[in-house]
Amino acid sequence: MSRKPTSADAVGKTLERALDPLTSALKRATVKRAQADKIDKTAMPVSPLAVPFPRMPPIPGLVMATGRAGFYKHERDDLLVISFPEGASCAGVFTRHAVGSAPVDWCKRHLEATKGESVKALVINAGCANSFTGRPGADAVRRVASAVGKRFDCRQRDVMVASTGVIGVLLDDAKITARLPELETRLTADGWGGAARAIMTTDTFPKGAYAEADIDGVTVRIGGICKGSGMIAPDMATMLALVATDAAIAPAALQNLVNLYTRNTFNAVTVDGDRSTNDTLLLFATGQSGAPGISRAGDRRLADFRDKLEQVLLNLAQQLVRDGEGARKFIKITVNGAETAASARRIARTVAESPLVKTAFAGEDANWGRIVMAVGRADEPVDRDSLSVKFGPHWAAQDGLISATYSEAKMSAYMKKSELEVSIDVGMGRATSTMWTCDLTKRYVEINGDYRS
Amino acid sequence: MSRKPTSADAVGKTLERALDPLTSALKRATVKRAQADKIDKTAMPVSPLAVPFPRMPPIPGLVMATGRAGFYKHERDDLLVISFPEGASCAGVFTRHAVGSAPVDWCKRHLEATKGESVKALVINAGCANSFTGRPGADAVRRVASAVGKRFDCRQRDVMVASTGVIGVLLDDAKITARLPELETRLTADGWGGAARAIMTTDTFPKGAYAEADIDGVTVRIGGICKGSGMIAPDMATMLALVATDAAIAPAALQNLVNLYTRNTFNAVTVDGDRSTNDTLLLFATGQSGAPGISRAGDRRLADFRDKLEQVLLNLAQQLVRDGEGARKFIKITVNGAETAASARRIARTVAESPLVKTAFAGEDANWGRIVMAVGRADEPVDRDSLSVKFGPHWAAQDGLISATYSEAKMSAYMKKSELEVSIDVGMGRATSTMWTCDLTKRYVEINGDYRS
Repeated sequence: MSRKPTSADAVGKTLERALDPLTSALKRATVKRAQADKIDKTAMPVSPLAVPFPRMPPIPGLVMATGRAGFYKHERDDLLVISFPEGASCAGVFTRHAVGSAPVDWCKRHLEATKGESVKALVINAGCANSFTGRPGADAVRRVASAVGKRFDCRQRDVMVASTGVIGVLLDDAKITARLPELETRLTADGWGGAARAIMTTDTFPKGAYAEADIDGVTVRIGGICKGSGMIAPDMATMLALVATDAAIAPAALQNLVNLYTRNTFNAVTVDGDRSTNDTLLLFATGQSGAPGISRAGDRRLADFRDKLEQVLLNLAQQLVRDGEGARKFIKITVNGAETAASARRIARTVAESPLVKTAFAGEDANWGRIVMAVGRADEPVDRDSLSVKFGPHWAAQDGLISATYSEAKMSAYMKKSELEVSIDVGMGRATSTMWTCDLTKRYVEINGDYRS
Repeated sequence: MSRKPTSADAVGKTLERALDPLTSALKRATVKRAQADKIDKTAMPVSPLAVPFPRMPPIPGLVMATGRAGFYKHERDDLLVISFPEGASCAGVFTRHAVGSAPVDWCKRHLEATKGESVKALVINAGCANSFTGRPGADAVRRVASAVGKRFDCRQRDVMVASTGVIGVLLDDAKITARLPELETRLTADGWGGAARAIMTTDTFPKGAYAEADIDGVTVRIGGICKGSGMIAPDMATMLALVATDAAIAPAALQNLVNLYTRNTFNAVTVDGDRSTNDTLLLFATGQSGAPGISRAGDRRLADFRDKLEQVLLNLAQQLVRDGEGARKFIKITVNGAETAASARRIARTVAESPLVKTAFAGEDANWGRIVMAVGRADEPVDRDSLSVKFGPHWAAQDGLISATYSEAKMSAYMKKSELEVSIDVGMGRATSTMWTCDLTKRYVEINGDYRS
């Protein structure tokens, strides 16, 4: 589905002219929706499950600036530019969505071409996802990368681009490129909080995570921000995460690490199972810490770094669930006793995405019947007569029957908590998996169904 | 997962005694839930998408009676008994759920053993699903079948049993068996409306369908009833359908027909994707019409019968969606241009079950961005740059872009209808599939999340 690079600028220009009427129609037709969608989302109350933004020191080698490109009508920053030093590494994972956006196409193609060895800049805008915008959308991304490349003295392929916002609206790249001169004068090492706010769409709080790790006796920093009000809300297409470290790690190793840890972090959270066209996780290593350069993900000197990286990714991923649209409960679902890890994951995901399970949580009901239903419909091997379900420390069902120690009073008290755990044993083997999800409330339907009325 | 028949009654009795304390605990512990769940569901307003119960004449050879077993506190029939004549055929399809209920186990095992050649009676109760009730639940089914067999002078294996209602509550079989003598005196050929009402749980209207077909110049009757407020609501576990004809069709042919037509009828509707532990569709042929006996599903004389049977099944299946919890819109999703039929089905199902698509319908928003998102996350082959989406007669997107003829005013007017159609072309091939679904409203969350407050 990826496009070949334009072979000649002349062809590109001819095409642009030919597409001009369509491009204008596209802008006109969608501007109304873009505005409608933005109306009261700015006034959303902060999620009751929010966590405070952490103290985040600079990552040596990395400078950033935010500004207002004007994708929103109201006063807010919606543009983030980051500059990386010579020799920085880059790796990324992207949506597997069959209808990937123009910026996702761009990053995938150029990360492959450059092997992540020459990244110099990253541009992120909020308010327009530039997804499902065809050839004009791809051209807009190229023009952004080209303008940034000229400003930052690098090739356009060394510029990563990410967009988040409404689907089907063409990116007005002039809004971005017009701000570049000003942003260039304001680059600073210390701006994580503002950066996290600049990339928010329906998020109700900015999301960041930070950790320090030891590599061969040298302390390195790992800092990350992300946005997304769940997996969810893909007409506000959706999850973006950016993690940077001053460790010196070769791109291939960095790519292995991000592949390895995405599974149990960003791929282990769900709000409504609706995956986005724009999901992007980028990992950068500036190499400025003074720690030795590392070329293999399995290098023993990375042991502590690997742990801390996973912690940062999990922390960020969990904040997406904490900001899930309408969420009032933060729920950890653990499946034990599955035949294989893949089976455990599919069962956990089916439970975590079941509307009936999620509405029961909203109703503070320890409805183990619905958990059993969701386990069964995952189409995975399950021993019905060994099946057990526990809410926190309380058994609901054991060995295929309601638990003999089931206490309605204890369950009701437990279900009032805002952070809940469900453990399920399916009695087949030893494989296990954990997913994080939130409840499904009337507020979710309001946010996603009533926004026009 | 199916259980072996008890080898000796003595062993069974010993086990029953041993399990007695657990059985009582199970009854006590769950009685509260059963009552809580039933409270205001009786007062639910009839779905705005309801259709009237059809005129349904008797099916020659079949007599039935309904009564009050008392699974509900309020006055209503919750028990249906049907008697079939000598030589009737039976076929069925059942939930593929890994945690099938005790009555599903029973029917599957005995249909296999008898090859569907000797069915004599069917008992259905509402108000208790007898699902996830382990060995005591299986024993309860056996006692029901045994009592019915004594009354109707047949083996217990010739009695089909179906239950629907709360999960995890053991069936109190005495409530059923105590009513058998009375029901026996009231057997009548003309009771479809009452029968459809007796098997309702959260349904807001009784569901029936009827057609006549021609077999070799003889008119035969096909009548069916079903219950289910969607696929859905499995702690009111869930879909039961019973279709009977006076045609003379051998059990193997009957089984082939029901397998063939389930795919595009009962398996082509969804409310929330949450499949039940108790889903059961039974098809009976009494052979009393005088039409010639047919032994092969492909027999040319069955051509009209096959069409009419499919119509009856589709009509019943669609009524489940029309009674979907909280539904205000009845939506037909058609996927064209897929690589294979299986691929088309998976794409259609993903769209039909996407919470974001369903909430957009609730908001009367022709949100094609969400349709595109759902298509893309089905993980099926899709040509992004050929993708088109149409709402009724109005194009929203064509060839991977918003349609040049997109009109917000026309779309808004169309979306106010209560019956909607979405056509999607994924530009890969010629395969097609249709699914029916409903919107996701705040009322759904209320029904499934607020029932305790």
